[in-house]
Amino acid sequence: MTSPVRVVSFGLGPIGLAAARLALQKTSLQLVGAIDIDPAKVGQDLGDLLELGRTTGIVVEADADAALARLKPDCVLHCTSSFLPAIKDQLLLLSRHGVDVVSSSEELLVPEFQHPELAAELDAAAKASGATILGTGVNPGFAMDLLAVVASAVTMDVQSVKCVRVVDAATRRLPLQRKVGAGLSQSEFRKQLETGKFGHIGMRESVALVARGLGFELDRIEHTVEPVLAPEDHKTPFLIVKEGEVAGIRNHGYGYIQKRLVVHLDLSMYVGAPDPHDQVELESEPPISLRFPSGIAGDQATASILVNSVHGVVGARPGLVTVLDVPPARIAR
Amino acid sequence: MTSPVRVVSFGLGPIGLAAARLALQKTSLQLVGAIDIDPAKVGQDLGDLLELGRTTGIVVEADADAALARLKPDCVLHCTSSFLPAIKDQLLLLSRHGVDVVSSSEELLVPEFQHPELAAELDAAAKASGATILGTGVNPGFAMDLLAVVASAVTMDVQSVKCVRVVDAATRRLPLQRKVGAGLSQSEFRKQLETGKFGHIGMRESVALVARGLGFELDRIEHTVEPVLAPEDHKTPFLIVKEGEVAGIRNHGYGYIQKRLVVHLDLSMYVGAPDPHDQVELESEPPISLRFPSGIAGDQATASILVNSVHGVVGARPGLVTVLDVPPARIAR
Repeated sequence: MTSPVRVVSFGLGPIGLAAARLALQKTSLQLVGAIDIDPAKVGQDLGDLLELGRTTGIVVEADADAALARLKPDCVLHCTSSFLPAIKDQLLLLSRHGVDVVSSSEELLVPEFQHPELAAELDAAAKASGATILGTGVNPGFAMDLLAVVASAVTMDVQSVKCVRVVDAATRRLPLQRKVGAGLSQSEFRKQLETGKFGHIGMRESVALVARGLGFELDRIEHTVEPVLAPEDHKTPFLIVKEGEVAGIRNHGYGYIQKRLVVHLDLSMYVGAPDPHDQVELESEPPISLRFPSGIAGDQATASILVNSVHGVVGARPGLVTVLDVPPARIAR
Repeated sequence: MTSPVRVVSFGLGPIGLAAARLALQKTSLQLVGAIDIDPAKVGQDLGDLLELGRTTGIVVEADADAALARLKPDCVLHCTSSFLPAIKDQLLLLSRHGVDVVSSSEELLVPEFQHPELAAELDAAAKASGATILGTGVNPGFAMDLLAVVASAVTMDVQSVKCVRVVDAATRRLPLQRKVGAGLSQSEFRKQLETGKFGHIGMRESVALVARGLGFELDRIEHTVEPVLAPEDHKTPFLIVKEGEVAGIRNHGYGYIQKRLVVHLDLSMYVGAPDPHDQVELESEPPISLRFPSGIAGDQATASILVNSVHGVVGARPGLVTVLDVPPARIAR
């Protein structure tokens, strides 16, 4: 038996908490600390926050620098924000402490896509201290990007790829339902969309990752987001969507070589979406079609892939890496 | 542009030739040599052997040592034998030359499973010269093992796994049809089976790989092979299977923890098999079901995954590695 990997949870929103809960169950991991700036959480035992019915001895701290200096973890489960500029200082701090990072930040999937200078700075900082930084998740990070790349292993040539993901948002947590606009009017939806912090984050990063993985040198990446309107009233455990209100989103990502569409990602996330599934189609030799008939949904899956990525990241080369650069994540025990 | 990886094809049977043909099409690879001991092939230009209608300047050589010394390749596509004892000296020679290896040898998928001492010797030799050795393929190596492990990334816990693969051998090359016994009588089939060189090779290695990937500490690995008899006459492009003759094989692999079956691999390869497909079912939280509706078949797929594994192996740490230890293979361009 090798000693367990010492892990700190950084960011205790719904996904961060789910990842912390799961990490506590893994004998190959030892959760040794928890960091969050929310005053309602600081000072609480993680066992209370997770409603475990027991204390864990892990008390939520607000001062990340002090916590890292004291705990010296091998790896951090980082779940604070989708957006790279918002987490830059956190990642630099983690690198200064030489700590490996598995992050749920969608923009970190392909950090240089939107933030090339910031990515270079983070890469240099991580390399200087021997730390590895990985952004991953179910989407982006697996269902609509990595799977297509993995499937390409058995092909001689790939001309194009299409990934379809249908998620019934009614089966997901409330923040996810809110994020896809369930229950909004169309005008509220448009207003929310303009913030850039709404809907599914990371579609263009998925296109960029697929393109890198399949060796497509894209000229252009585009994406579109449209509301899906409820054809009838729909009640979830958390809210009611009335007929004609927004039930969720339809989000397309497109990657072009000149005028040729070579990457097409088609995501539907709305309350009441029928036939949830994930599908990957490679226009390739031989052709490849791959389907998860019930889909890969649920916050369980997201928490899982974060926790299951820890061992691979701890063993990986230093620097900013992507899911294409490390051994495939697999269940941690 | 980085310079292409210099590759030598070692072993020019059907799979080796298919891999060489594909490597010639890749701009990121440069095929610089070809090795085979078959007197009918030695001295021939690879272009003639592949019926390309042009010469390549790559002439088949029998003396591997001399070829490697002169060509100094980065990586070898190794397709000579399924069995580790038969390729030990070849792999040691390759390691002495510091050459990375992608091999189709089924036993090399998990070399220490059947040959722990030999595996340790190869690992030490490879490490001493900075070479990496990987065994891979579609099956074993992808369809019935790696895919299940990759799918586990999105699960919190896995209790058991079942992989089903159905291949219509009528769509495959003649050696594959012969290898599964198409056209044999039942008694001939039994006799062939006793040689241990017949049927699908690598089933137990697949069970071992799945177990390692999913963290199952197995007490026992078993496999069974039964003939599938043709219910009616069946003609392939190469041979005729008469009603009552062997059409191919049904091969099960089992991995147990105590008496609990936790890994079940179910392979059918026979002439006329209906509904060819690949399927992975994880009894997990959340449950995972994954299906390739038309299957991942064809020698194209096997040649592809070998060629597509070259870049990952060239970038990997030295020593004997498995497909679990390297970044996922993806299409080489």
